[in-house]
Amino acid sequence: MKAKKSDFSGWYTEITAGAELCDLRYNVKGMVVFRPNATIAMKGMYRAWERELEAHGHLPALFPALIPESNFTKESEHVQGFVPEVFWVTGAGDARFDERLALRPTSETAMYQMYSLWIQGLKDLPLKIYQSCQVWRHETKATRPFIRSREFYWIEAHDAFATKEEAEEQVLEDMRMTENVLHRQLGVPFLFFERPEWDKFPGAIHTYAADTLMPDGKVLQLPSTHLLGQNFAKSFDVKYQNEKGEKEFVWQTCYGPAISRGFAAVISVHGDDKGLVLPFALAPVQVAIVPILGKGGEGKGGKVEEKCRELEGKLKAAGLRAKADFSEATPGFKYNRWEMLGVPVRIEVGAREVESDRLTVVRRDVGKREQVVEASLAAWISSAEKELLASLVSKADAWFNGMKRKAASMQELKKGLEAGGFTAVPFCCVEMGGKPCADRVKEELHGDVRGTLHSEKEKPGQGEKCVVCGKPASCIAWVARQY
Amino acid sequence: MKAKKSDFSGWYTEITAGAELCDLRYNVKGMVVFRPNATIAMKGMYRAWERELEAHGHLPALFPALIPESNFTKESEHVQGFVPEVFWVTGAGDARFDERLALRPTSETAMYQMYSLWIQGLKDLPLKIYQSCQVWRHETKATRPFIRSREFYWIEAHDAFATKEEAEEQVLEDMRMTENVLHRQLGVPFLFFERPEWDKFPGAIHTYAADTLMPDGKVLQLPSTHLLGQNFAKSFDVKYQNEKGEKEFVWQTCYGPAISRGFAAVISVHGDDKGLVLPFALAPVQVAIVPILGKGGEGKGGKVEEKCRELEGKLKAAGLRAKADFSEATPGFKYNRWEMLGVPVRIEVGAREVESDRLTVVRRDVGKREQVVEASLAAWISSAEKELLASLVSKADAWFNGMKRKAASMQELKKGLEAGGFTAVPFCCVEMGGKPCADRVKEELHGDVRGTLHSEKEKPGQGEKCVVCGKPASCIAWVARQY
Repeated sequence: MKAKKSDFSGWYTEITAGAELCDLRYNVKGMVVFRPNATIAMKGMYRAWERELEAHGHLPALFPALIPESNFTKESEHVQGFVPEVFWVTGAGDARFDERLALRPTSETAMYQMYSLWIQGLKDLPLKIYQSCQVWRHETKATRPFIRSREFYWIEAHDAFATKEEAEEQVLEDMRMTENVLHRQLGVPFLFFERPEWDKFPGAIHTYAADTLMPDGKVLQLPSTHLLGQNFAKSFDVKYQNEKGEKEFVWQTCYGPAISRGFAAVISVHGDDKGLVLPFALAPVQVAIVPILGKGGEGKGGKVEEKCRELEGKLKAAGLRAKADFSEATPGFKYNRWEMLGVPVRIEVGAREVESDRLTVVRRDVGKREQVVEASLAAWISSAEKELLASLVSKADAWFNGMKRKAASMQELKKGLEAGGFTAVPFCCVEMGGKPCADRVKEELHGDVRGTLHSEKEKPGQGEKCVVCGKPASCIAWVARQY
Repeated sequence: MKAKKSDFSGWYTEITAGAELCDLRYNVKGMVVFRPNATIAMKGMYRAWERELEAHGHLPALFPALIPESNFTKESEHVQGFVPEVFWVTGAGDARFDERLALRPTSETAMYQMYSLWIQGLKDLPLKIYQSCQVWRHETKATRPFIRSREFYWIEAHDAFATKEEAEEQVLEDMRMTENVLHRQLGVPFLFFERPEWDKFPGAIHTYAADTLMPDGKVLQLPSTHLLGQNFAKSFDVKYQNEKGEKEFVWQTCYGPAISRGFAAVISVHGDDKGLVLPFALAPVQVAIVPILGKGGEGKGGKVEEKCRELEGKLKAAGLRAKADFSEATPGFKYNRWEMLGVPVRIEVGAREVESDRLTVVRRDVGKREQVVEASLAAWISSAEKELLASLVSKADAWFNGMKRKAASMQELKKGLEAGGFTAVPFCCVEMGGKPCADRVKEELHGDVRGTLHSEKEKPGQGEKCVVCGKPASCIAWVARQY
């Protein structure tokens, strides 16, 4: 297998095929088949995000995937941002429609016309609704499975409030939910950036996006949350009656936890040169049980296999996804296979294990054999689940934190970008000059200005100058190469 | 509210609006918005079916929603059956595609080309994969929310086997899964019919469909399972190498548990003139807690509300979806509201309940107040969950079984159809005469021949004649008016 460190792209191609995550041979360009191993993991991710959203007052709903073209044209920035990549449905059967229907690239224009009907007074607010669905975008950039495809899976949460303050608070809550799920449950570190003006979600006042890093040092954008202000409320006439009996436009936010792309991060951040490394919540098989028979299959159908079957039954009864592997292959082949699939725990059962009260167990991320008294197996697995996740988080954090640099000149920025990861530079963000300077960074250094750090109010020191144009710097911008 | 018995159609319209299940004002004809109350219930149904499918060896996958037109034309019956109602994507952005893409009306033609790549030998069989998704069909019949719309939610399971016997056994397993979920967990009774030749799934050898009855006595088709034989395998070249090293076509089945339409049955079969009646598994709120304050809101913010909040916390901690209702409304208004929403259990808390160790509880289907010692509340709720479901099942069964009739002449059949439900008649099924006779039943009596009963091998008695043409009968056909 290709080495993740030195040839990430080759490694990624091999692992997505080798672990049977997807199939790229589907005959529509840019669209992939998500095979069971990926689908089960993505379902685990859906569960984690949906639980978190519901714990924070969101309710699920389902809106049609088809949106009339005229809905799109109501918010002028939005239409410009999305229409170039919309798939159009122009008819059905032999009939041609009078108006084209868009296959949703995102659901604002489907949902907010309904919000306009549902929201009348303060009793209807806040309205916090999420939809778990796929969206379609005719991407012109090169597609990679899970990272970028023309059909992808996500959740979109669309909230409406009476006041700007509540909407701003929702943006912070979205960031906390991202921390709770993406970082703590899936072990993917990230930084939330406020995106520069020219890189905002079309129609938003502010866009905050979580950027993680792939092993090659390039950033991958994960969930983003947007303060939409009253832009869409005005376009879709979403109003409520305030205490004085006056009609006011609502304040809105939207938030998009990525599922298929989030899985790309999980694959890439945790995987190693043996294959996937998955937390328990996402693993299609959580415990694999491998029988070790004698030479030439000696003992087949005997006590060793019986023991494996017994363990499988017990673990399943305890709610674990366990699998005893009786396939025709050597134990070594099976170990490799289960490692490729990222199974968190492997149990090896041979004649010695049958005769003693001990089992041989291996945690995927550690890779070393341990002996466990059979009576404490359940407790050991339960600890293994927590320890594996904690270890994935801390390992990922350590690497991620080592990928943040500073630079005070274009030359230093160039070095930083070549080394990979984030490089923070003094920059002329707010001024009109921001965009041309960012364009130069893109053109000359192939770097993307990701924005300013949300968590800390970073300010350039006195006298610091924009690394691009040399004018006085007004912010610290973080730059990276992107997917 | 309209009476379900005498005006089912009016009742259905009122309940789907009153319980905030859907919104018909979305601006694409025939497509509806599924609001949170329906979405939560449908998610419960998805969980139940997916658990059942996985317990029977199925794995989830996700295939693209867009299918090239040429895929459809590979199986000639299939293309004729579906192409008239396919939504076509003809381009994206400003680009026009060389080949139109269908928005999937069903996924055979998307999936089987991949099966052809995945299945090589016996080790790849059986292949049992399901996809939870929505499909789009440009229906020409009148749409009704959940019953028939141009976008609907379902699961489709597509299985491939080495032998015909295994495929036939899968059809039986599909029927058992239907019994386990639809009848035992959702309380919806049904009969499995083998559909007549002219009413089979396009491309299938045999189609077996579960028909339930709506309160007006008309049938609604629910999950169907199809023995596809080798038809699609030949069209999509799905072959495996047998033990002799020869290539053979696989035998296939497909099975489609309906989610949105299944919910229509749940609404209609169990609902009453106060609103929805939902089993615990589907109820967005399982326990509603209503505070009873003194006149003019006396005691507001006091011990009664404190008790409600405490109970809500305890029930939530026990894993129940509980809600204390502190909204501004009278207790009577709240009772009506929670009854409309089908909340299985209501707890009423007033000054008397605070002072004693007893609570007043009401089960939705029974509707009578009971006193429960607070310490046994959890146990009472747990029994209530089981008893409510058992009661829904037995009530639905009793009504359903009373809707089966027999007839020996067109006149008797006419009476049966007018009374509603199923009428079984001697019929010339197999012969070439079947279709014209069925057409006459349709034309003259507005009755649909649903097929022959699968569970029993019903045979006409000696000398019995087809009720339509008077020729010797070859089977017992079940007839009903349909949705």
